[in-house]
Order: sequence, then C-alpha cells, then structure tokens
Amino acid sequence: MRLSQRISNITGGGSDGWDVFYRARDMIEAGTPVIELTIGEHDIGTDPSVLEAMHKSATGGHTGYAVVPGEMALRKAVARRVEARTGVPTTADNVLITPGGQSALFTAHHAACDGGDTALYCDPYYATYPGTIRAVGANPKPIVTRPEDNFQPTAGQIGAEAEGARSLLINSPNNPTGVVYGPETMAAISNACISHGLWLISDEVYDTQVWEGDHISPRALPGMADRTLVVGSMSKSHAMTGSRVGWLVGPKEVIAAAIDLATHMTYGVPGYIQDAALFALNAGQDLETKISAPFQRRRLLAEQVLEGQNVVRPIRSSGAMYLMLDIRATGLSGEEFATCLLERHHIAVMPGESFGRAASGHIRVAMTVEDSVFEDALKKLVELAREFAA
Amino acid sequence: MRLSQRISNITGGGSDGWDVFYRARDMIEAGTPVIELTIGEHDIGTDPSVLEAMHKSATGGHTGYAVVPGEMALRKAVARRVEARTGVPTTADNVLITPGGQSALFTAHHAACDGGDTALYCDPYYATYPGTIRAVGANPKPIVTRPEDNFQPTAGQIGAEAEGARSLLINSPNNPTGVVYGPETMAAISNACISHGLWLISDEVYDTQVWEGDHISPRALPGMADRTLVVGSMSKSHAMTGSRVGWLVGPKEVIAAAIDLATHMTYGVPGYIQDAALFALNAGQDLETKISAPFQRRRLLAEQVLEGQNVVRPIRSSGAMYLMLDIRATGLSGEEFATCLLERHHIAVMPGESFGRAASGHIRVAMTVEDSVFEDALKKLVELAREFAA
Repeated sequence: MRLSQRISNITGGGSDGWDVFYRARDMIEAGTPVIELTIGEHDIGTDPSVLEAMHKSATGGHTGYAVVPGEMALRKAVARRVEARTGVPTTADNVLITPGGQSALFTAHHAACDGGDTALYCDPYYATYPGTIRAVGANPKPIVTRPEDNFQPTAGQIGAEAEGARSLLINSPNNPTGVVYGPETMAAISNACISHGLWLISDEVYDTQVWEGDHISPRALPGMADRTLVVGSMSKSHAMTGSRVGWLVGPKEVIAAAIDLATHMTYGVPGYIQDAALFALNAGQDLETKISAPFQRRRLLAEQVLEGQNVVRPIRSSGAMYLMLDIRATGLSGEEFATCLLERHHIAVMPGESFGRAASGHIRVAMTVEDSVFEDALKKLVELAREFAA
Repeated sequence: MRLSQRISNITGGGSDGWDVFYRARDMIEAGTPVIELTIGEHDIGTDPSVLEAMHKSATGGHTGYAVVPGEMALRKAVARRVEARTGVPTTADNVLITPGGQSALFTAHHAACDGGDTALYCDPYYATYPGTIRAVGANPKPIVTRPEDNFQPTAGQIGAEAEGARSLLINSPNNPTGVVYGPETMAAISNACISHGLWLISDEVYDTQVWEGDHISPRALPGMADRTLVVGSMSKSHAMTGSRVGWLVGPKEVIAAAIDLATHMTYGVPGYIQDAALFALNAGQDLETKISAPFQRRRLLAEQVLEGQNVVRPIRSSGAMYLMLDIRATGLSGEEFATCLLERHHIAVMPGESFGRAASGHIRVAMTVEDSVFEDALKKLVELAREFAA
C-alpha cells in the first residue's frame, strides 16, 4: 500500500547527521559510561514544587478533557508574560497552548503554508526544522548563514531567497550556535518580511537564556505583530522538556485557525500539566534563575578552559545552553572530530553538520552536565583538538 | 496576511451543530445547574491509583524528553493487548504511542492521503472526522448510512463512493450511535477496501464498551493487516480522557513513517503519562470493568424508562457510552428538540444533526451522570417528546 508522498518525504532522505548521537546511546545501553553533551536536556529534572502542583491538580479532579485552546488562566498568564517581556499588547486571544514548542512550530507552518509553498529557514538550524516544513507539505529552503557573519542572516541573503516564499523561520537565541540576533539583524529580517510579504515564524524557546545583552522579539518591531507567529515553551525556561507544554502567540485570526487545527490534531493539552505550567510561571524569577544559572556558570567555566589557545574557537554567543566550537584548525570535519572524541574519551557532542551546511567544521557542546565533569570533558576536547592541529 | 487555504478550510464553514452544547456551557457558567449529557466524559475522574503511578514516575525523575515512538515497555504492552484481543501478530514496531486518539486519527490520514485526495467516512460521525481529513489537506466524502440499516454502511454504499478515494474511516463500536458493526458489515467493508485499494482507518477507542456480542477489529480479517490503521486510546477504556494518550497500530512501514511525523508534529508523549498508562493497562480487567460498569448499568436503566412507549425509539445498539434516540415522532428536528429540552428542563443532549445528515431527527444522550439523575432526566425527556407527539 502506498503511503502519502508528504509523509514519505519528511526526513528528506540521506543521513541526518545524528549517527554520533545514536552511537553514544548504544554505548550507554551497552554499559559504557558516556559523558552526554549532545541534546538540550537539563541535568536537573522538573522542579519538585512543579510536580507537586501537577499532582494536586490531578488528584483534585482535573483529569477530564481540557478546553482545546488551553485553560483561560494559563492563556492569560502567557499573554501577560509575553506583553511584559516584549511590550506588545497581548491577550488570551493571541495565545494557543500547545503540547510543546514542536507542535507550535508545526502549527505555525501549517497556518502559513499550503502544500507546495516555499518556507525559508536559517542554516545552521534545530534538527526538526526542514522536516517540520515538509510535514505540512511545503518545501524547505535554507538561508545558509556564514561563520564570518556570526551565523546571522543578512538582508541580502534573505532577499535572495524570498521570491515566492510564504514564510521565514528564525530562532534567537539560536540553537545550535547560541547567537542572539542583534537589532541590526532583526531589522533586516523584519524589513525583508514586510517587503516580500512573508510570515515570520519566530522560535523563541531560549528567550530566558540570554547571558549578555537583550533578547529582541521581532513581533515587537514596527509592522510585525500582524505577521509574526511566536513559538514558546516551558521546556527550556522551566526544565519541563518532557511535559510537552508550549504555546503559539500571534494575531487573533491566526490563533482562531490554529485552534481549529488543534481540535483536529491533538485535542488539547492535559489540564493537570497546564496547571503545573501555570504554577511554574507564577513561581516567578527565582525558579527561572535556578534553572538557567548552571548554564551561565558553565559558560564562564568554558571561557577559562578555552582561553590561551586558538585551535578550538568558540563562536561569539550570548544565549542558550550550548557552545558552538569552530574546530576547523584540526583539519577534521565536525563529524570526524565528534566520532573520535566519542571513541577516544567517551564524550558525546553533536557535529555541526547535524545542523546543516553552515556549521560544518564545528561541534555543538550542550552544557548539560555537572560543572566539574563539564570542565574536565572540555579540557579533554581541547587536548584532542590540539593533537590533531599539531 | 493570508492564511493557508488548508487551515482556513478545516471547519468547512457553516454551523457545526454544536450550538446546544455551547449554550449549555454558557448556562453552567452563568450559574444555572444543567444536567450534562452531551460529551463522552466519564462522571468518575482518572483512578487515584493511576494518578499515584504517574506521580511516582514524575518524582522518580521521568520528566525529560521521552523517546518519540513511545517508551518500549508501553509499546510492547499495547502490542500484547492488541494481539490478545484480535489474534493479529503485533509487536512494538506496529505501535506508535500518540498524544491521544485524535492525534492517531490525524496521523493515519496524514499517512494515507496527500493534499487533494479523497477520504471516505461514515455519517453519522464523531465530530472531528471531516475536519481531521481537511486538516491534512484531503477532501472528506461521507457515506450516509440509514436508520433502517441500523446506521451501518453497506457494500453498495461504499462501492458507490470508493472510486478514486484513498481511505475509509470507520468507528465500531460507533459514536454517536452505539452500534457495533457485525461480521457481515465488516466483511463488506474489508472487501470494498481490498477491491478499491483503500486504506482502512479503524477508530476502535470504544472497544472495551461492548455490552452484547463481540467487537470485531477489521485488522484481523483476511488481507486486511497490511492496509488497516487502528486508532486506540486510554481515554474511554481507562477514564484518562484528559491525559491525551493513545496509539496508532499498523504495518511497520506505516509506523516508521508515523514516527517521522510525530518527531515533527508533537515530539512524543510525556514519560510520566506513559508510565501511568502502562500501570493502568497492567491493572487488568478489574479496573476496566470498574470504568465501564456504570454505562452498562445505565443502559439497562434506559431500557426500563423507554419501554411501553414508542415516541422515543432507541437505536438497536450494543456498545459505547451513548444512547441514540429517534425522536422523529415528535415532528421536531434533533436540534429543535434538544434546544427545547435544554430551555425547559435544563437537560443538555446532542442533536443528531451534530453528527451529520444521517442522524437528523435523532438525539444522542451520553450516559455520563449518576444513575438516579440519569433516570430522572430520561423520564423528563420522554415526557417532553410525548407532549410534542400528542
């Protein structure tokens, strides 16, 4: 029996660059201790206070169907939060609660693109981006950023690809690079969207992980609120990765259509998880700082380890829970280096090639293990690179 | 800014027949006590033992990303269950864990149909069916069953619509009618699928609510395992409606493609919910009986209330948590009767018209309130019908 072309084509064929990741998983399953610096999973779990709030909600009877758009109290809390952080007037009508940021990404592209439409995204990119675009039947087209531009897209690059496209997907603070797009980049993006009639899909799930400067939400720029769909999530900000709770923020008419889709795609998010998310948001800055502090600390640790050598060169970044390291001086590809590091030292990192063409010759290191283990792993990584460079 | 045609068209325009439902909700919110017999929500919540298992899993640390296809233990448990109930050899590779049955329905249609393809479904139908088909860009085409056929599709009816279609969606035990398709109907369906090259999408979420006779899973019929996609869920069988956990069962290559879609659509189901589902499945028959017993009891109650009159005529049914009542003798449409019942007696039921053309002049009564309240409401309903018929 023939499957739909659309579903058959989601991965786009070919290697996905995740071989090192799966090899590390296999080693762990086989009993080899591996230092896991691959994916964006906190080394702390969800806070016990949040889990207690969830259990209280569930045992209190909140186990039936939740309303599809999300509980009104949570939609309002997200709206207040977004308005407070960006200055853009936002109400519950601008918010759909989704089962995770990935669902919001899918929904945004489903709303922006019909089958056969072109959807732009920036390379390097989070692993699911091109597949998400293909999953809604659209054609992904990368804007390949350059290391010398610090991996930020330029007006010229966007303009060169925008003809006939329906949407542009950006991610700042960026995964995998950690780069936070500055005012100039954001202005170039918003101008390009306006002049080429594009929807802007802005994945801002790392917006609480900004270590220097400010996060700019492009929805706040002139003329952009009506064409920007913002993806948010509790995963990174509140260490709730496994709970699958996030949101889509956008114009009311988009949210109304997105609710129609949610009704037919997932039929809402568990009420007790929404209550836990509301509790976590209401817990305020202390909880968020507790969750982001380890990454800020390890970033400084990394600076110390990496200083005084220039074989392993960190990308100038100011956000997210990753380090992007340029290892081209070793003469190896990111994949070759990561494979060697795994075999030699049982340290797993992601090859830059896992995130597209732009970051080849780089590796991404998730700062997701205890400080001393992290420091030690980084030292071994530098040693290995120097060995190859010598 | 223009939205995609696909998302704009999900509801298909026009009234959805849910006015009575929303009116009842408004009355409740305004403080009027309404007896709610509209949707399939148990009057008991999720069992405390299941919620304890969930909390234990969460506090035990299962709060990070779960693997996208579903935890292996749960996939295996679902495979064992399906094999035991149907006799069809089934392994974990045939199972994708989904965030609820609705997600499995969407996934099945996404896998079967490309944009513009025709997807068949039977009328009367569960409210989301045509919208789910439109949400994947396909065209829904109803097979309008007849009261005189006890709302079961015939070989002739399917054959008349099958030309050029890609899939057929069925639901037995049926919502809204409660009818369980017998061997003859299932044989007609499977023959039609084979001769017309259709995928069969079989929504079996009520498979534990069979009060007389047996549930037949069409995947077990000759030649059908390779073309049948079964939608299952913990919602109805284990009173876990709000937890959004279900599954898609089908050929391995379909499940592999469905995992690709899940990676890009929802990125998995919370691990602690999967652990709760596994606990609930392992709890065995006692828990399932505890959950289904009230509906079986109320069905007998309804028989007593309805006997000795023929203004309100129940459809011959043998499953699910609903009564479908023919009220054509009142001279009213289902919608008119339901509206009057809500206004006069503050009893909310669903007009048959909410479920398509086939069930006009009928109403659907969910057996989801405490026995004495249910009995009393049904008596008032009969009185009202007799008043109109007189």
